[in-house]
Amino acid sequence: MRKIDAILTYNKPKGESFLKKLSGKRPLFVCTIGNTETAKTPGISAAGKNPELTDYTPPADVELLLLGRCKCIPGVPVTPEGIPTPALITKSALRLADIPVLVASGGLRVKPHIPFLDLGGSPGGDIRTGKAVENVGEVIKRATIAGESIAELADYLVIGESIPGGTTTALGVLLAMGIDTEGKVSSSMPGNPHKLKTETVKAGLKASGVEFGSLAGDPIKAISCLGDPMMSAFAGLVLGAATKVPVLMAGGTQMGAVLTVVKALNQQVLDNLAIGTTRWIITDKTSNLRGIIAQIADVPILAADLDFSRSRFEGLRAYEKGVVKEGVGAGGAAVAAMIKSGGSITRQTLLGEIERNYKQLVGSE
Amino acid sequence: MRKIDAILTYNKPKGESFLKKLSGKRPLFVCTIGNTETAKTPGISAAGKNPELTDYTPPADVELLLLGRCKCIPGVPVTPEGIPTPALITKSALRLADIPVLVASGGLRVKPHIPFLDLGGSPGGDIRTGKAVENVGEVIKRATIAGESIAELADYLVIGESIPGGTTTALGVLLAMGIDTEGKVSSSMPGNPHKLKTETVKAGLKASGVEFGSLAGDPIKAISCLGDPMMSAFAGLVLGAATKVPVLMAGGTQMGAVLTVVKALNQQVLDNLAIGTTRWIITDKTSNLRGIIAQIADVPILAADLDFSRSRFEGLRAYEKGVVKEGVGAGGAAVAAMIKSGGSITRQTLLGEIERNYKQLVGSE
Repeated sequence: MRKIDAILTYNKPKGESFLKKLSGKRPLFVCTIGNTETAKTPGISAAGKNPELTDYTPPADVELLLLGRCKCIPGVPVTPEGIPTPALITKSALRLADIPVLVASGGLRVKPHIPFLDLGGSPGGDIRTGKAVENVGEVIKRATIAGESIAELADYLVIGESIPGGTTTALGVLLAMGIDTEGKVSSSMPGNPHKLKTETVKAGLKASGVEFGSLAGDPIKAISCLGDPMMSAFAGLVLGAATKVPVLMAGGTQMGAVLTVVKALNQQVLDNLAIGTTRWIITDKTSNLRGIIAQIADVPILAADLDFSRSRFEGLRAYEKGVVKEGVGAGGAAVAAMIKSGGSITRQTLLGEIERNYKQLVGSE
Repeated sequence: MRKIDAILTYNKPKGESFLKKLSGKRPLFVCTIGNTETAKTPGISAAGKNPELTDYTPPADVELLLLGRCKCIPGVPVTPEGIPTPALITKSALRLADIPVLVASGGLRVKPHIPFLDLGGSPGGDIRTGKAVENVGEVIKRATIAGESIAELADYLVIGESIPGGTTTALGVLLAMGIDTEGKVSSSMPGNPHKLKTETVKAGLKASGVEFGSLAGDPIKAISCLGDPMMSAFAGLVLGAATKVPVLMAGGTQMGAVLTVVKALNQQVLDNLAIGTTRWIITDKTSNLRGIIAQIADVPILAADLDFSRSRFEGLRAYEKGVVKEGVGAGGAAVAAMIKSGGSITRQTLLGEIERNYKQLVGSE
């Protein structure tokens, strides 16, 4: 295989061997989605034009992946400044490399107009109440069964997520489980609102009577009190699939929360995991993915070396300024597309396809 | 490949070449499920201990397929006489041949405690009202998308169904679409209640202002007025998948209704289809699968040559007396297991596994 446009930033030798393991193999991309009330806290999430619209972002993202356009909203999900969803990157990567997609719901307020795996979950609450997610154990169980089934349908899985407010709930679960992450989680905004996130999580910790690290051995309670419904779906899929096939966990700092949940439930699968993300995450000065993962497990991090600085679209150049950065498994999907093509899909060909989709779906330069 | 224990009964040369096409290939089994009020008409369905319990049969069947046991009911679904569900056959075939399973819902009143594909449907009404199923066009569309996606994950699909009362709704759709099927549809009871089925369908035709054949060109209206939610899911999956891979439609006379809907929506896929069923269906004197299919398309029929006459379990020997006969894709799953194993799975090895599961799940001899 030619060298691919990916950066190995943590556990490099393991990353190299993980890449080799995937070479020439058939991936399946699974997008996990969910909604929470936490996302509607003003200033928490940029994954939607305004807080109320964040409910539509996950279903719209997966519609884009399956149909090439959104159905539950006009156009595509955008930040308050109009910068479009990273699902554009994911869709472009999956289409170029002809990678199949399934969607799994952890709990939704707004359902997508496409087929999706129902895992028995409900939408999440506001973590400030300390009652974040219901039925966590059962959803993890069902997602584990789904992961086992799906693992028989491909050589490896790439699992992504779309859930607004997800880095705040990640902070909640990580702190509850004793991972020092204050000021380390990422944001879809260039000015990472760490103070607001920490205040939100502290309110949730107080409301649920949980202290830093007190739920280190109880990931189900950690999600129930401070997490989001995507986590149960994602963690269960990993637990079920990674006993059989390699799994590329596609996302930013939220992957820390999922990884710590997975580790608490079955350490055996850790050797079959890597994190796939974007260069914008690993070079971000306002967050520290590597510093989070290093506290949890020796899992390699592979970052798609995307570069939008010369794009003709302002809405893509904005990614270079730290807007959006990651989501909908964009980085992992890009890495998988490069691997599957044996390196013939590069950051250049990807940008070409992303711009083509951008033009068609967003329009303006 | 060794000769397998299957009977080719219609379109034999096409059947032979269909079998050859599947040889050495990786199947995926998809079970479509749904609920209707029609099933609760006393005397219509034996797919449940009593009419109200029929709502639990489809979810319990797919729990059995995925978990090896039911969760939403104790034991397994049985007829009023206590004869167990054909899901026992399906599960045994899939397990022996290591065939993966997905579940797709067309519309459920009772949801299974396992992951399933939600296709946006609602449970069906009573066809005597002429208002049988809502949202048929949209569910077919979403199922088509699902079929296209799933087809990328396997070399061919085997699609089965579990929906109590399904032969009555099949009669409804077939008559509305102009296929002469009065007295031809099968039954899970040895004494096929043709009179009751015909009366039920005639009430539905009257209530919806439909006459024999008047909906020949409008399958969506035919399902909406006289069908069931399984049909939308099943037909859509076939329409999406069969453009890419062969599809074995696993079931009895209900496959006539699905096939006529598929044919009305896209004739192009017919060449990629076969019907997989059981010997009990093709030798049944109270129904006529071949006579139904021959009116629709030159699609081969392959019947698993199962023989339970020497089983040590009374509940299995009952199948030889015309009880149950087919369902949950039992016949097609058995055929696929035989093909996948290159003939090393025979009716004998299958019966052994079925008896093993019977003993564990039903118990008594």
